[in-house]
Amino acid sequence: MQGLALTSSSSKIVLAMFLLGLAAGAAAADGRRRHVSRSPDEPCKKMTLYYHDILYNGVNNSANATAAPATKPTALSTVFNPNGTYFGMLVVFDDPVTEDRALPVAGEEPAARAQGFYFYNMKETTSAWFAFTLVFNSTESKGTLNLMGADLMDEKTRDFSVVGGTGDFFMARGVATIRTDVIEGFYYFRLQMDIKLYECYV
Amino acid sequence: MQGLALTSSSSKIVLAMFLLGLAAGAAAADGRRRHVSRSPDEPCKKMTLYYHDILYNGVNNSANATAAPATKPTALSTVFNPNGTYFGMLVVFDDPVTEDRALPVAGEEPAARAQGFYFYNMKETTSAWFAFTLVFNSTESKGTLNLMGADLMDEKTRDFSVVGGTGDFFMARGVATIRTDVIEGFYYFRLQMDIKLYECYV
Amino acid sequence: MQGLALTSSSSKIVLAMFLLGLAAGAAAADGRRRHVSRSPDEPCKKMTLYYHDILYNGVNNSANATAAPATKPTALSTVFNPNGTYFGMLVVFDDPVTEDRALPVAGEEPAARAQGFYFYNMKETTSAWFAFTLVFNSTESKGTLNLMGADLMDEKTRDFSVVGGTGDFFMARGVATIRTDVIEGFYYFRLQMDIKLYECYV
Repeated sequence: MQGLALTSSSSKIVLAMFLLGLAAGAAAADGRRRHVSRSPDEPCKKMTLYYHDILYNGVNNSANATAAPATKPTALSTVFNPNGTYFGMLVVFDDPVTEDRALPVAGEEPAARAQGFYFYNMKETTSAWFAFTLVFNSTESKGTLNLMGADLMDEKTRDFSVVGGTGDFFMARGVATIRTDVIEGFYYFRLQMDIKLYECYV
Repeated sequence: MQGLALTSSSSKIVLAMFLLGLAAGAAAADGRRRHVSRSPDEPCKKMTLYYHDILYNGVNNSANATAAPATKPTALSTVFNPNGTYFGMLVVFDDPVTEDRALPVAGEEPAARAQGFYFYNMKETTSAWFAFTLVFNSTESKGTLNLMGADLMDEKTRDFSVVGGTGDFFMARGVATIRTDVIEGFYYFRLQMDIKLYECYV
Repeated sequence: MQGLALTSSSSKIVLAMFLLGLAAGAAAADGRRRHVSRSPDEPCKKMTLYYHDILYNGVNNSANATAAPATKPTALSTVFNPNGTYFGMLVVFDDPVTEDRALPVAGEEPAARAQGFYFYNMKETTSAWFAFTLVFNSTESKGTLNLMGADLMDEKTRDFSVVGGTGDFFMARGVATIRTDVIEGFYYFRLQMDIKLYECYV
């Protein structure tokens, strides 16, 4: 950029501000999306969603079930706990995800689907590990978020990482804080997920 | 910033531009790699690769097979579909990945290997979820890319997240768009993967 | 910033540097954490940790075991290698992670726990793929790091991606270089993990 010659002070200011805008990624005058990365105090996007896991019981709930165990608990799962900790049981799921606590009524599309798996992996207590994709396919949002993390079920809240996104969530990253909202016997539980994205392209 | 009044001078502009260059991470005069993050319209790296899944049939293809089911479909997989949706079947793989559609001939090294797993996780239709590592070990590229995402097989294309990389792909992030290129019976399918990286260190 | 009036060149430089500081995200005068992204030569955080996998033998080590196979090797695992390559065996774990090579003594808390899974996925040789969470819950660190990658066991070192973090490791990314430190029979191995984070919020 050598050889630039500016003669009035106002035009120098305009140039400096323009360049600063570029440096901060603030100029999107061409209509392209731009990368936003903010402090932990200011997520670029926030959502609260409810994850419903409806486990197949192998008997009579195939119409409602959206998850099924692909492996059985190992022998280690009953050594320390007479009820078992399910250590080694891996569940694959295509679970509905909603904006409020109720399950979708017949014919209603959920806000998203959670597709992925979890497995129980502690011998003294029941605790799990998750990896899954939130698939959004509504008028509001189309795209996916990919998450993974330890579901330390004995903690009141625990955090998963949002490690990537596509579509409307292109290249997103963030943190999802998980809370067990309800457990109904062995075949249904609901998690509240407070998702905060700190890297977005908007 | 209204009302700023500067009275001199070209040297200030030069200094400001130099500092701005630093702020934008543009100065790599020391030869070190630097972080590049661009708009969604300009990936820092693009590749088209073909993923070949050759599933072990348990009988006579052990010489060619590079994938094998680690779990069987659950009972839920046949409830809604007489042929089954394979719900719950988890496949682990060390599959060849090539730059064109043909499988490597004997003795030829593929462009990369895909190491990881997928499982089928929908009850009404056959759909899968993937997590894997692309392992590059050629004269062109050495390193890995790590991917995960829902393979919504009923969609013409679907997107996985590229969540990390190592070696030549150090700290990369991006999106891989997947297209089913061919399915030959139950034991072979090929996916076209259009990989675009939007964060690179170059 | 309305009404600013600068009359000397030194104060103009100061202003320019202040604005540039904002552009680079360097100003954290409000006490908030800020995003740090550096060159590959300067990780923002480094740790060396040891991962201890103590596999349940199904017989007599339930007190010590912290990992168990959820699936058996497939038939493909013994075709090319009389001892088997364990192709298809998936192990879930809640393994201790320590700062030095020794296992924690009774009552001692490890530096972290590694919660997740690996599976063997090569037919000619024994090689694995990992995804897990490092859970830190000590006075030094609270939070998690999420990792995934191919454990190419025939290589002296191999790299996993650190794809996300929470708590003290909020939004972290990096690379973990893995080295097999010791293998004792089939039921114990130790990996050295040199973890370098290149994106941090500090």
